[in-house]
Amino acid sequence: MGNIKDYHIATLGSHTALQILKGAKDEGFKTICVCEKGSERPYKSYGVADEIISIDSFKDYFKIEPQLVEKNAILIPHGSFVAHVGAEKAKDIKAMHYGARGILEHEADRGKQRQWLVDAGIKVPKIIKTPQEIDRTVIIKFHGAKGGYGYFLANNEQEFAERIKEFPENDGFVIQEYIVGVPVYAHYFYSRLTGELEIMGFDKRYESNADSIGRIAAKDQVEANIHTTYTIVGNTSLVVRESLLTGIFEMGDKVVAQSKNLVPGGFYGPFCLEGVIDPELNYYVFEISARIVAGTNPYVNGSPYTALRYNEPMSTGRRLCRDIKMAIEGDRLGEILG
Amino acid sequence: MGNIKDYHIATLGSHTALQILKGAKDEGFKTICVCEKGSERPYKSYGVADEIISIDSFKDYFKIEPQLVEKNAILIPHGSFVAHVGAEKAKDIKAMHYGARGILEHEADRGKQRQWLVDAGIKVPKIIKTPQEIDRTVIIKFHGAKGGYGYFLANNEQEFAERIKEFPENDGFVIQEYIVGVPVYAHYFYSRLTGELEIMGFDKRYESNADSIGRIAAKDQVEANIHTTYTIVGNTSLVVRESLLTGIFEMGDKVVAQSKNLVPGGFYGPFCLEGVIDPELNYYVFEISARIVAGTNPYVNGSPYTALRYNEPMSTGRRLCRDIKMAIEGDRLGEILG
Amino acid sequence: MGNIKDYHIATLGSHTALQILKGAKDEGFKTICVCEKGSERPYKSYGVADEIISIDSFKDYFKIEPQLVEKNAILIPHGSFVAHVGAEKAKDIKAMHYGARGILEHEADRGKQRQWLVDAGIKVPKIIKTPQEIDRTVIIKFHGAKGGYGYFLANNEQEFAERIKEFPENDGFVIQEYIVGVPVYAHYFYSRLTGELEIMGFDKRYESNADSIGRIAAKDQVEANIHTTYTIVGNTSLVVRESLLTGIFEMGDKVVAQSKNLVPGGFYGPFCLEGVIDPELNYYVFEISARIVAGTNPYVNGSPYTALRYNEPMSTGRRLCRDIKMAIEGDRLGEILG
Repeated sequence: MGNIKDYHIATLGSHTALQILKGAKDEGFKTICVCEKGSERPYKSYGVADEIISIDSFKDYFKIEPQLVEKNAILIPHGSFVAHVGAEKAKDIKAMHYGARGILEHEADRGKQRQWLVDAGIKVPKIIKTPQEIDRTVIIKFHGAKGGYGYFLANNEQEFAERIKEFPENDGFVIQEYIVGVPVYAHYFYSRLTGELEIMGFDKRYESNADSIGRIAAKDQVEANIHTTYTIVGNTSLVVRESLLTGIFEMGDKVVAQSKNLVPGGFYGPFCLEGVIDPELNYYVFEISARIVAGTNPYVNGSPYTALRYNEPMSTGRRLCRDIKMAIEGDRLGEILG
Repeated sequence: MGNIKDYHIATLGSHTALQILKGAKDEGFKTICVCEKGSERPYKSYGVADEIISIDSFKDYFKIEPQLVEKNAILIPHGSFVAHVGAEKAKDIKAMHYGARGILEHEADRGKQRQWLVDAGIKVPKIIKTPQEIDRTVIIKFHGAKGGYGYFLANNEQEFAERIKEFPENDGFVIQEYIVGVPVYAHYFYSRLTGELEIMGFDKRYESNADSIGRIAAKDQVEANIHTTYTIVGNTSLVVRESLLTGIFEMGDKVVAQSKNLVPGGFYGPFCLEGVIDPELNYYVFEISARIVAGTNPYVNGSPYTALRYNEPMSTGRRLCRDIKMAIEGDRLGEILG
Repeated sequence: MGNIKDYHIATLGSHTALQILKGAKDEGFKTICVCEKGSERPYKSYGVADEIISIDSFKDYFKIEPQLVEKNAILIPHGSFVAHVGAEKAKDIKAMHYGARGILEHEADRGKQRQWLVDAGIKVPKIIKTPQEIDRTVIIKFHGAKGGYGYFLANNEQEFAERIKEFPENDGFVIQEYIVGVPVYAHYFYSRLTGELEIMGFDKRYESNADSIGRIAAKDQVEANIHTTYTIVGNTSLVVRESLLTGIFEMGDKVVAQSKNLVPGGFYGPFCLEGVIDPELNYYVFEISARIVAGTNPYVNGSPYTALRYNEPMSTGRRLCRDIKMAIEGDRLGEILG
């Protein structure tokens, strides 16, 4: 039987690192936080890192990787790893790391991601190919628009033609069915060791300025010519109508089952389905994150859902580390490394 | 002295069942979850049900009731019981069940409900009898409108006349004073055993699409011709200004006192006052739920309020089960069964 | 070494008293709640006050102060103390009280408060001196406007001139750059004993009617002629993007450092920076509260941040009482009394 004292849990100091490292310590691991110089403060203040390795930029990850290898560290890739090191570089990681090999590259490609959801039988918003085919309310999303700046709605070709004039130098766009409903992000954990899918909780994002323009009277909004943007600033907690849970479990099952066609052995670990629930309670999914999401950060001390099952505070970060612990102690570590 | 080991706590698998069953187990009870076939998953996954009884539809509750009776189960009726079995059927329940006899039938009748609040001295929005009498901003609520689809505002008879044209085939409507303020749902627990009223917490609903249209710029909303609907998708947590608590305790007192005129011995158990607080801090109540509400689901592990009083996680579901436990152990069970 | 049994923790029964008194009891102190007659209920119900002293009005605080002195009570001034007794009266307090002498008077003066932030190098919204100089979207804030009633936006002098006509009898106003972004309130604790700054958590306010007008379709808002107001009704919890934390720690450092120029020895204890984060992730601060804020009330049982550092529920109120405990036991009480 392996001993967790022989390992470290390591992650980049950003995104969900506080939660992951706290969870690792709660499970008994020693921890390493790889920080960008000048950003060590939170990891020191909250006491979650037994060791801090500072680098100029997360892009330099591979320069310090040998230190992780030497310390027998298991790296947990998260959203900042994907954003700064790059999903395509995940295949070059030489340190032990958690997660199904190939899945991050898959997630990072929006076309493949959509195909995963569609093939799994998940409801997704329709894509409208040309302005001439607009037959419902649609949202026009510009490629590379920072924080979604300039996204607009249209009901038909004429409205589209009128509004697109405001953006003569756009880099292209996609026309997507606009689902009017409330955003709901569902956090899952699928363990390859237990073969079980768990729902860990839900959140909604807190986006600047989308989550504050509603505080401005409609008249003032129009006069001030305010454009909606969707820069993520934080997350807030949420529980869903209990009768929706069965369907949400099924959605998770389908995504996990379909992943077996995408990567050898299929996907495992934390993931998130990101979508909206409409007034008829249909859950449309826009995106899948095949790794821990920042939306789990409100639940460092457990969510209303994990409180049902675990009689101790169980964050998604801690659940992940428990999976690693179980693998080490059961000599099954190979099954959960990428 | 009775022994809780001789009893089961049972509820229908929906609404607040996770919280109730978890609370029952934390208090030491064995639990039964009555599920609609295919909806057993959450109750298994979260490990809250010692036994699951599956039926085709909650409407078939009475078919399995003898099993509950045989197991000495105490049924906890909640919102899904009211919605699917029917409040008027509550009087036919033969299993032991928690709650004041007759109160659910009372709650289900909107006229009687309003009268309860008015007689208790609670502030309620004014009802305007005819369009000619509109002398303030009003909301027009259509009878049977699913999720509140089509509800609109008007300031006077002319505006009313203009907007009502869009709904030529409506099934009737009520014209209600429109209170501009923020929704606040206050959760109470009144114990007949201790004679004490507790405030358990607060929530606001998360409604589709009402809670997302504000994320759409006013200009886009108008162009996309978006109607507001109020389908409940979930709940979010909330604390209120501390200086409001005294008044909110008094509102609860009044409702409990008035209930003595409605049902023999008066109401007891969890209830909720659902309303809005305006900018002058007046709390207007639209509705009363005389049973546990789904708004308590964010607090499976206790609320910021129950954390003050109890040095253990205390959900409303658990508080309710503690009342039953206290009744059993004090040989007072008859006082809290309907 | 001093003994905490020789002391009481006392506060006025409002604002954050539940949290402070619960925290005091968790740290082992006896507690006193000074209540306005008729407002004792919450403090009794939640069992946080070992003793209640009732007075007609908080303005009569000085009448009962000798009782506090006699009991060796340490008073915790909070927002309701400032609002009802007055910041300028803080210098007359004869009971032991927590907090840097002179800081509340400083905080209560909006001009001095802004200067504190500016001198600390914190981003604040620009003040526009005259309507003629309006060169961006601005908000016009009337002096003494209750709950912000009537505040409006303008993009230029012409729009300003048009809208100001609606308020012919205003008592003057300030023209402030309007930052379009989401409100974020950052809760800090700085201990003079440990020399360390902690981030305790974040909240956003729940304001009537600002946080509900977005639930009304834009068309209906315009027709109903709804004005935005900002009366605080409660608070909701929030976590921020983890990569923002380093900058937020630095903002806290700067405010603490600058305070050494304002009051002898500088500021210590809980404080809050209140602002908005824009889509480019700039954090603009409108206000500083140099004392515990009601925004910490969602975290009676600890926040997702304090859960990282403390293996027990740590509210801001409890953290403050722990500082007092540490001072008493280390014979350093003089360092943390005002």
